Amino acid sequence: MTRFNPNRRTLLKAAAAAPALALPAPLLAQVSGPAGRSNPPYFRFDVGTARITVVSDGYLGLGVDGLATNASLDEIVAFLEAHRLSTEQNYSHTNHVVIQTGEATVLVDVGSGNRFLPTAGRLMDNLNAAGIDPSTITHVVITHAHPDHIWGVRDGFDEPILPDAEYIIGAAEHDWWMQDGLVDRVPAEMQQFVVGAVNSLTTEGLEWTRLRDGDAVVPGVRLIDTPGHTPNHMSVMIESAGKRLLALGDAMTHAYVSVERPGWHGGFDYDGPTAVETRKRLLDMAATDAIPVLGYHFPFPGVGNIMRDGDGYRFVPAIWNWG
Amino acid sequence: MTRFNPNRRTLLKAAAAAPALALPAPLLAQVSGPAGRSNPPYFRFDVGTARITVVSDGYLGLGVDGLATNASLDEIVAFLEAHRLSTEQNYSHTNHVVIQTGEATVLVDVGSGNRFLPTAGRLMDNLNAAGIDPSTITHVVITHAHPDHIWGVRDGFDEPILPDAEYIIGAAEHDWWMQDGLVDRVPAEMQQFVVGAVNSLTTEGLEWTRLRDGDAVVPGVRLIDTPGHTPNHMSVMIESAGKRLLALGDAMTHAYVSVERPGWHGGFDYDGPTAVETRKRLLDMAATDAIPVLGYHFPFPGVGNIMRDGDGYRFVPAIWNWG
Repeated sequence: MTRFNPNRRTLLKAAAAAPALALPAPLLAQVSGPAGRSNPPYFRFDVGTARITVVSDGYLGLGVDGLATNASLDEIVAFLEAHRLSTEQNYSHTNHVVIQTGEATVLVDVGSGNRFLPTAGRLMDNLNAAGIDPSTITHVVITHAHPDHIWGVRDGFDEPILPDAEYIIGAAEHDWWMQDGLVDRVPAEMQQFVVGAVNSLTTEGLEWTRLRDGDAVVPGVRLIDTPGHTPNHMSVMIESAGKRLLALGDAMTHAYVSVERPGWHGGFDYDGPTAVETRKRLLDMAATDAIPVLGYHFPFPGVGNIMRDGDGYRFVPAIWNWG
Repeated sequence: MTRFNPNRRTLLKAAAAAPALALPAPLLAQVSGPAGRSNPPYFRFDVGTARITVVSDGYLGLGVDGLATNASLDEIVAFLEAHRLSTEQNYSHTNHVVIQTGEATVLVDVGSGNRFLPTAGRLMDNLNAAGIDPSTITHVVITHAHPDHIWGVRDGFDEPILPDAEYIIGAAEHDWWMQDGLVDRVPAEMQQFVVGAVNSLTTEGLEWTRLRDGDAVVPGVRLIDTPGHTPNHMSVMIESAGKRLLALGDAMTHAYVSVERPGWHGGFDYDGPTAVETRKRLLDMAATDAIPVLGYHFPFPGVGNIMRDGDGYRFVPAIWNWG
């Protein structure tokens, strides 16, 4: 595989062509906020005998127009208003799952690092806040190679942030991003994503274990194919002592939109119709088999149940628990 | 007013007669839990220019039969199963509201203290964890004189835990509990509640400011009559810069049951039909005027919106926010 080394001009051009990622000024003002404003960035619970900790990487303030490319802005705004959500900004959470099985500590996705939006990239600090020493992480699973999921793999010196972990990704997802010359075949606004994915995947000192649908990361943690958001996106099924949790990754990107309007194509979905098919399959499975889900971008901690509601579904957040 | 001083025999008899408060053994085992198991006990957000911090006092593990006295256990269990909630235990949160206006710091209800269930009584520790020095609290508002709302007013030496705050309660609520001889006129299982309320209200060193419907505690914080759960229960309306939040107290005690089945009489509701009337009035107001609510026993942090759903309503939790 050839490492892709774009020059600075190419990168800047790609960045300029990516309006959805431009950071509106009011967001910058929110990053630090008044003293004492921030809320705790972690949440713990058990799935069977596995200890789960959801740890935030921060948040992304996205445009609401990106919630659907096949619905009008009026329809999107009406949906948001009916749900009493902001029509100014899609406040998108970043819920990382840490699975402690006793034998292994698995981290799902590695966050934005310091190259993406300044409101994200806090995963390592927040792991420490949650009492999890990052050096104890034995496995890193990447659901897909988008910036907020993989760019945090390396630090400012291009060195791996977690050098001792085993790195896992879907084989087809890895192959897709690593195609020769992909950057020249994608739309301009996607070039920055390709460059970042390639640079992340080729970080020196990392080797990638390439898994397929149904393969186990460690006992009780396996990948399932959930394509569409990216060509070969993977979700993560956690099973322990008869209990399950499905970490969706970005197979659903919004707790209300993706669940109640699964037919809407998200602005970051690579293949809209396939993403719709995947969402409908997951919604049916989660509702029928009563499998709790965790959405990476759902309201922190992102955990809840999918309930049938008339002909459709709705998301009911799980209950916070100190027991 | 006469201070009521029951002897130990009376108290033990009252305790024995209160099966709903008996602590099942499995709960005791959960109190401490494995190291690192507990989740952060506070959550911050703004209402206009007022800073709100929800601080937990712990939780109460109650029987599910207490969720309705005018529905069968089968109906209750079916409702819980349809909502994927435990049918073994009603995991009841205890969400205290701290309102910081710049001029004043108002605490709504003062928790269980060390006399009630061992899973509660953590409010002072959790205020400190939230970075709020309890000595900075200028006003304590009591919604009603049940154990989990007022027993924490005094410490093990019967001294006020917050001696410098102003104490506020609805005048009629105060009058009701302080009636001469009330303890002899209530059912045996309520005697312990009366004794605890009277002892709390007569704590030496405390004076009570008695307010009425619509009265302001401080500018932007006012009481509203919401009777039924207790004869003269009060809720707290917070208003700042055009934004509102209604702290329900126990006018609704369960985020799903009280909202979707407002006609069910709660096991701790004193006057079922009046409590139903209050709930229906509040649900209509919150849905019509789009006023976010905060339920003391709702899933932490207890904040959300009341949405119309067919002929009824449902509770949609607000979104966690680090902005």
